[in-house]
Amino acid sequence: MRLSPQKILDVENSFRRQSIMQTFEAELAEIAPGRVVIDAPIVAGARQQHGFGHAGLTFALGDSAAGYSALTMMVEGAEVLTAEMKINLLAPARGQRLRAVGEVVRAGRRLVIVRATVSAIEDGKTTEIALLQGTMIPV
Amino acid sequence: MRLSPQKILDVENSFRRQSIMQTFEAELAEIAPGRVVIDAPIVAGARQQHGFGHAGLTFALGDSAAGYSALTMMVEGAEVLTAEMKINLLAPARGQRLRAVGEVVRAGRRLVIVRATVSAIEDGKTTEIALLQGTMIPV
Amino acid sequence: MRLSPQKILDVENSFRRQSIMQTFEAELAEIAPGRVVIDAPIVAGARQQHGFGHAGLTFALGDSAAGYSALTMMVEGAEVLTAEMKINLLAPARGQRLRAVGEVVRAGRRLVIVRATVSAIEDGKTTEIALLQGTMIPV
Amino acid sequence: MRLSPQKILDVENSFRRQSIMQTFEAELAEIAPGRVVIDAPIVAGARQQHGFGHAGLTFALGDSAAGYSALTMMVEGAEVLTAEMKINLLAPARGQRLRAVGEVVRAGRRLVIVRATVSAIEDGKTTEIALLQGTMIPV
Repeated sequence: MRLSPQKILDVENSFRRQSIMQTFEAELAEIAPGRVVIDAPIVAGARQQHGFGHAGLTFALGDSAAGYSALTMMVEGAEVLTAEMKINLLAPARGQRLRAVGEVVRAGRRLVIVRATVSAIEDGKTTEIALLQGTMIPV
Repeated sequence: MRLSPQKILDVENSFRRQSIMQTFEAELAEIAPGRVVIDAPIVAGARQQHGFGHAGLTFALGDSAAGYSALTMMVEGAEVLTAEMKINLLAPARGQRLRAVGEVVRAGRRLVIVRATVSAIEDGKTTEIALLQGTMIPV
Repeated sequence: MRLSPQKILDVENSFRRQSIMQTFEAELAEIAPGRVVIDAPIVAGARQQHGFGHAGLTFALGDSAAGYSALTMMVEGAEVLTAEMKINLLAPARGQRLRAVGEVVRAGRRLVIVRATVSAIEDGKTTEIALLQGTMIPV
Repeated sequence: MRLSPQKILDVENSFRRQSIMQTFEAELAEIAPGRVVIDAPIVAGARQQHGFGHAGLTFALGDSAAGYSALTMMVEGAEVLTAEMKINLLAPARGQRLRAVGEVVRAGRRLVIVRATVSAIEDGKTTEIALLQGTMIPV
């Protein structure tokens, strides 16, 4: 299966309109059927009290990667919303960059079950820092 | 029960060091034993593709309110980390401002169970938009 | 708001057909609009390795109470399914009986957000042992 | 890495003491480092109102598989408890048998992050029906 050029444009255009992704200097690194990867530096303005990335940053990247992975499975012009999301934090968001990989587990007509992992890259070393599991709904 | 002045300072100092809270122009509105309230505008740089607040903003405020509610129950000088958090989104983050109310459900020695609600205020009307339930760990 | 006699029958009939509720000797203790209470002994056949109630028992009661609370809000003849559920366990299921209280947080057309608490009763003393938060879907 | 005979006995003995596993006629199908598989028929006494397996059965098997996968990573004589667990239900528990596969994602000193999948087997065809993600704590 390959994504249509229109579907890729749908994802890119929606992503560009998410101002929080610009605030976090996040970029789409991969758009594939049922899988989207987002990269972002840990910007100075998205930290918690010890200087690591805030859980809100980790969540936002994981949630967006998961949501756009769901969007790749929808008909053109459709949209998805997060209904619910669970995040387990495995380690601090320490390093220079984060990478969020979102994947579709089950694309139903009414609910799309998604997962995401978020990893931190510190001096070239990658550590998985968060697991997300949740539900997107087509709208 | 009343919070000691030192504990209130602990919360305020930690909050001030979270740069993401400054990026979101968030403010501590209330610090009470087992309960913390955070207010924030829906800033231009924290939106999703339709101009509503991004789920990452809603999560960040709810998670911080819940985390600081846990911190009020810890001994002075302690800290807490989010181990896991579940969010159910009830409605879009539509309006001018958000208010997150975090509360401690059970403060154990090893785990602190917390909840938070996030509401959106639009033209003076308040709508509950998210429920969070999760676990903080003292460190 | 009061429940119609037909809606109360819908809940009772559905509950009676859940054979797991009979295995657990569970009973409907209350059916109100958006709120259902289920009582059950901690039967000998539903324990974990230390003789306390198994998390599966606690979950089953909480999930059913939450699901039936959602059902009270549906049109007659409708049904609901659990889409997802999160449980935080606060204390062991120690004692003679459990009580699960399910409540509707938000009844949407496509999703019903629910909560439940489960308490254990030991020698007349009630302790909250679990919090659930999840999503039911009308079918 | 191989499990010590003592550790395998620890898991088997604990499992045998969980009376709910006997009620559900569940059996340990595999015990490996960080991975435990539990098989069970969908017994007549563990059904929901349409005759499918109840979510409480699916949860109990997934939670136990996840918990015992965590136990394989603990020192001998240790035990684990479920702190929290999230389940997404993908499809009805339809068929003759269920299989739950629990796996450790991250074994920390204080928290063990686990996942499980539960599948239903109907006339030889296997369908994934649930995903679980949660936290075990050593005690």
